[in-house]
Amino acid sequence: MIKVGIIGATGYAGGEIVRILTGHPDAKICWYGSRSYADRPFGEIFQNFFRIVDEKCVDEELASLAEQVDVIFTATPQGYLASVLTEEILSGTKVIDLSADFRIKDVAVYEQWYGIEHKSPQLIPEAVYGLCERNREAVKQARLVANPGCYPTCTFLSVYPLIKEGFIDPDTLIVDAKSGTSGAGRGAKVQNLYCEVNENIKAYGVASHRHTPEIEEQLSYAAGRPVTISFTPHLVPMNRGILVTAYASLAKPAKEQELREIYDHYYQNEYFVRVLKKGVCPETRWVEGSNFVDVNFQTDPRTGRVIMMGAMDNLVKGAAGQAVQNMNLMFGLPENTGLQMAPLFP
Amino acid sequence: MIKVGIIGATGYAGGEIVRILTGHPDAKICWYGSRSYADRPFGEIFQNFFRIVDEKCVDEELASLAEQVDVIFTATPQGYLASVLTEEILSGTKVIDLSADFRIKDVAVYEQWYGIEHKSPQLIPEAVYGLCERNREAVKQARLVANPGCYPTCTFLSVYPLIKEGFIDPDTLIVDAKSGTSGAGRGAKVQNLYCEVNENIKAYGVASHRHTPEIEEQLSYAAGRPVTISFTPHLVPMNRGILVTAYASLAKPAKEQELREIYDHYYQNEYFVRVLKKGVCPETRWVEGSNFVDVNFQTDPRTGRVIMMGAMDNLVKGAAGQAVQNMNLMFGLPENTGLQMAPLFP
Amino acid sequence: MIKVGIIGATGYAGGEIVRILTGHPDAKICWYGSRSYADRPFGEIFQNFFRIVDEKCVDEELASLAEQVDVIFTATPQGYLASVLTEEILSGTKVIDLSADFRIKDVAVYEQWYGIEHKSPQLIPEAVYGLCERNREAVKQARLVANPGCYPTCTFLSVYPLIKEGFIDPDTLIVDAKSGTSGAGRGAKVQNLYCEVNENIKAYGVASHRHTPEIEEQLSYAAGRPVTISFTPHLVPMNRGILVTAYASLAKPAKEQELREIYDHYYQNEYFVRVLKKGVCPETRWVEGSNFVDVNFQTDPRTGRVIMMGAMDNLVKGAAGQAVQNMNLMFGLPENTGLQMAPLFP
Amino acid sequence: MIKVGIIGATGYAGGEIVRILTGHPDAKICWYGSRSYADRPFGEIFQNFFRIVDEKCVDEELASLAEQVDVIFTATPQGYLASVLTEEILSGTKVIDLSADFRIKDVAVYEQWYGIEHKSPQLIPEAVYGLCERNREAVKQARLVANPGCYPTCTFLSVYPLIKEGFIDPDTLIVDAKSGTSGAGRGAKVQNLYCEVNENIKAYGVASHRHTPEIEEQLSYAAGRPVTISFTPHLVPMNRGILVTAYASLAKPAKEQELREIYDHYYQNEYFVRVLKKGVCPETRWVEGSNFVDVNFQTDPRTGRVIMMGAMDNLVKGAAGQAVQNMNLMFGLPENTGLQMAPLFP
Repeated sequence: MIKVGIIGATGYAGGEIVRILTGHPDAKICWYGSRSYADRPFGEIFQNFFRIVDEKCVDEELASLAEQVDVIFTATPQGYLASVLTEEILSGTKVIDLSADFRIKDVAVYEQWYGIEHKSPQLIPEAVYGLCERNREAVKQARLVANPGCYPTCTFLSVYPLIKEGFIDPDTLIVDAKSGTSGAGRGAKVQNLYCEVNENIKAYGVASHRHTPEIEEQLSYAAGRPVTISFTPHLVPMNRGILVTAYASLAKPAKEQELREIYDHYYQNEYFVRVLKKGVCPETRWVEGSNFVDVNFQTDPRTGRVIMMGAMDNLVKGAAGQAVQNMNLMFGLPENTGLQMAPLFP
Repeated sequence: MIKVGIIGATGYAGGEIVRILTGHPDAKICWYGSRSYADRPFGEIFQNFFRIVDEKCVDEELASLAEQVDVIFTATPQGYLASVLTEEILSGTKVIDLSADFRIKDVAVYEQWYGIEHKSPQLIPEAVYGLCERNREAVKQARLVANPGCYPTCTFLSVYPLIKEGFIDPDTLIVDAKSGTSGAGRGAKVQNLYCEVNENIKAYGVASHRHTPEIEEQLSYAAGRPVTISFTPHLVPMNRGILVTAYASLAKPAKEQELREIYDHYYQNEYFVRVLKKGVCPETRWVEGSNFVDVNFQTDPRTGRVIMMGAMDNLVKGAAGQAVQNMNLMFGLPENTGLQMAPLFP
Repeated sequence: MIKVGIIGATGYAGGEIVRILTGHPDAKICWYGSRSYADRPFGEIFQNFFRIVDEKCVDEELASLAEQVDVIFTATPQGYLASVLTEEILSGTKVIDLSADFRIKDVAVYEQWYGIEHKSPQLIPEAVYGLCERNREAVKQARLVANPGCYPTCTFLSVYPLIKEGFIDPDTLIVDAKSGTSGAGRGAKVQNLYCEVNENIKAYGVASHRHTPEIEEQLSYAAGRPVTISFTPHLVPMNRGILVTAYASLAKPAKEQELREIYDHYYQNEYFVRVLKKGVCPETRWVEGSNFVDVNFQTDPRTGRVIMMGAMDNLVKGAAGQAVQNMNLMFGLPENTGLQMAPLFP
Repeated sequence: MIKVGIIGATGYAGGEIVRILTGHPDAKICWYGSRSYADRPFGEIFQNFFRIVDEKCVDEELASLAEQVDVIFTATPQGYLASVLTEEILSGTKVIDLSADFRIKDVAVYEQWYGIEHKSPQLIPEAVYGLCERNREAVKQARLVANPGCYPTCTFLSVYPLIKEGFIDPDTLIVDAKSGTSGAGRGAKVQNLYCEVNENIKAYGVASHRHTPEIEEQLSYAAGRPVTISFTPHLVPMNRGILVTAYASLAKPAKEQELREIYDHYYQNEYFVRVLKKGVCPETRWVEGSNFVDVNFQTDPRTGRVIMMGAMDNLVKGAAGQAVQNMNLMFGLPENTGLQMAPLFP
């Protein structure tokens, strides 16, 4: 039984880790870290866990807690983990970080986009970017996994086969993404109040969202050369879900069927990536509560472009689910252990 | 492995049975009955099951299908099951009916409130009203279970301890209930369109809703005398969830603590009924996707009344989950097999 | 042209006063009071007024501002107005208070339910409770109007005719109310975040909500004797709207038609109260954005009760609209001046 | 007083025309055309108009009705107006068509994208495309106005200044649009049920939506050469609102300030187009219920692209409001008569 600790258990992503692990046959949560709600029963903060989780939240140092568990999930603000993580901690405990601290290899890029100093750049090289479908083997060996951002996960899986195979021109790639509101976190801000979000849609972080360099870095690996994209996220009045609509010009002539075979080829053995049938668009409702990513594409002969689409649950495959998927890999378990729940609809 | 057939698999309740049973260790769905979508892959109607369920929907006779399975769930319009069910079918297969056909013992009451003739009244006596917490032992022996309505389940469990113990005056009981829109079904009606339901709340079926006699019958058993109530359902702009707010005058003086002990006593061994702590109101978000019912109450010394509240997921404990709970009992399994998923929040 | 000042212009009720008055032919807003957003353009806080309102928010003393306007609307926290209002201010300016400070005649009741000391009890006697349909003539003469609470307005108008005529037993009155989330205000609280409110319904303030004594006081005037009620508000995932479902036992035999004639009689000359046709339930969507209150009732011969229902927009008739209606009366204008906008649907 | 007739008054766009005209000082609706609800009081179909509109719906021939009014609004399915409109009708009555029948000048393009034969192609040449900000003078002289589609209106106004001035390369234009559900109409379809739309976002009509050629035709006029675009609409769980996010490469170097001056120049005298301040993104909540279109843009030096955004209410500026704006122009009224209502928030 894997002993698990969660730092930041009372945020939305933290709560989702708890939900998933309560149904996981080989893991047991040993402590629920929360600064805001220390000493209060976790099941009274997230009342859905009333009588399911009896433990209280704790607020302790990472180092001391690390001694008690096999793996730590950090669902914490940017900069936290980098400021407390040490070689000593890593020598005894695996860490899966849901923040952005170890996702970007170039520390200068991190510091520029996040506007903070990185306090442990020496640990960046060993961190594995935990996009399982891409870095499966490296994850299995990792001590420190940088769990990917929600937008990067959905974007990458939606466009990866065509960019990898050179069918689209990376310089033309435009990613228009839409997210449910849980992605904005559980902090008390006016802009996230019900009446501010409901009956509204807006773009935000236009040409400046922090997930941009993360997406670009991963796509660059796939393309084999630097990729610069346009990325625009939007806030949608729903709790969960991310939809990516990505546009790119075909780099060489290709028939629908040819591209479809590439998608099928890349994802035929992936449990969590579902390539939909021709003409069926991904919709967030079909993946809610699950770790699936639904992807599909549509060619447009009029413009010579291909429109690539992906839908997933931002809290599951975009955060907690992928984190558990990484944990499974790191501990030699079947990748989908505890993650086979069907999506909830409606 | 229990072989399962579902008639009406492509409605919301039917789809929820599928969701739950895909995670059930001891049951296997053998056919997905649907008149509307016969011959179409189930996973294309409910796209959440794409690549999870590969079977096609079928539209066959109850009798012939009954031979292939151990238990049939009927999530069908009122009157259907009563018109096709026979002793022969029941002699070979168990039936769990999610419609109202066998919930009410007095056929005249059924025919009056539902406005249709009951085609197999001779089978009513043997049907067991499948409110597990109440009729557990009878369910275990049953061939035919009438799965309770959503409002009756939530109402009954919310008020049962106090009415059973004689603490409230049944003649003063008023039940004001609120339901998410999945309770209205998947039929294409203008009144259930997004723009008609969203940003709106309304009462409906005032003083005339069909669940009224069902609630009254069950409460009468508990009270030991006929009970007549006011029951008003409301439609709430959300997918899932039922909240019951029930009002009654205390029949005898009682302190908060005394009533609390009664609730605790009645439900202390019930896995699915969670008596919340004093002052915590049930909320539908804390039970979504799960089979839990959260109940609590508040006394009001100013009026001499007690306000009893209950929240549950109408598609789970109010339909599919309770149906599976009944199946577990009927087949000798632990009652919560396949039903231990934690609620999904947010 | 009436010169208007608003204190608390950047809350939801304050913003709604601005919306209504921008379409009012005889009023002009001279200052937009806001502590939180002082010196910022109002049209950048409520971006819907961009290029419609060019003025900046101000944060000044009530006394000095009072000299510049004919009437002040205070949409402020409980206790504020009572702490700053003086006879001198009232001698020069009319005040319409949207807080609860002057709604309750018995200062002890106010202090008990609101938990704060009332700083100017000497002004309570002259304050007129601004439920226009009830106190029209008094409002016309008033210097200080206590604009009614949202729940009290909707409750009172829903039950008034029957309680006034003695058809219902006041001791049996139970009010189950449902409100959209704008009623919770624009403060940054976790409980009002989108993901906490969406897909949820809950009761709150059970047997303890502050609007209870306000409702009881007004109903007592109507009944001619003290009235004590059960009142339970619920939070609904929608922006606007209040629905009241009220239950009471008939005090004397009455036919549906007889009660209908009473409703029609009481409201036939009321522009803003619409008695719906028999069998049509009030719904909040049909009044959104308008000052209308839709009311209706249903008798229930089985229980001897009558169910009375009312729907209105909590920000309009429940706050800003009624405040403007009061202003119209106080300044000798036709009551519906600037308030004739049709409800917005969908 | 302009006498108005509406065909299709009981759809969402039709109902919105009624809402706007009930507040219009110079127009009076003489008949409410509806095939589905003939002979039923309009105020019982759209209960928001109860006691505001007393007339019954009628189902009569266009020709006979045309004799009774000065202007007809047709909010009807594609193909209807083209099948019944005649020179004789136009000789006596002005027609403002909210369908697509007369929007596209090339009848072959219309027939290809809409899949139906155009029954009165001879009337196409005289129809004026009623995008007031673009064709103001022509509208004033028109007998037949083709009211623009919702997506085309929002797209055009968002990108027009930069495409007209040659700052963006039309071949690179990608339009990603998001719409509330009222745009899908009031027909009873499963896909538009509350539970299907709520908690979901999806693309639809990818590379095939019918508004594509309409947008392209108008942009071609602006660009002075044929324009082919990618256009992808998405369905958002909200009642009203359209948001357009449009991407294009700069055709020549340009500073932010330079582009801003162009927007300001083009729209400085436009009452309904609000160019937001730098850094403020359009949001649909800020225009709900009004005829405003909020536009803004963001340059992205990293990619050499400019992201242009626009938000409006699809039922107002995208349908009924623009139709009334056209009516005002056609009858010599100030363009914003009856259309000055401030947006409703929240």
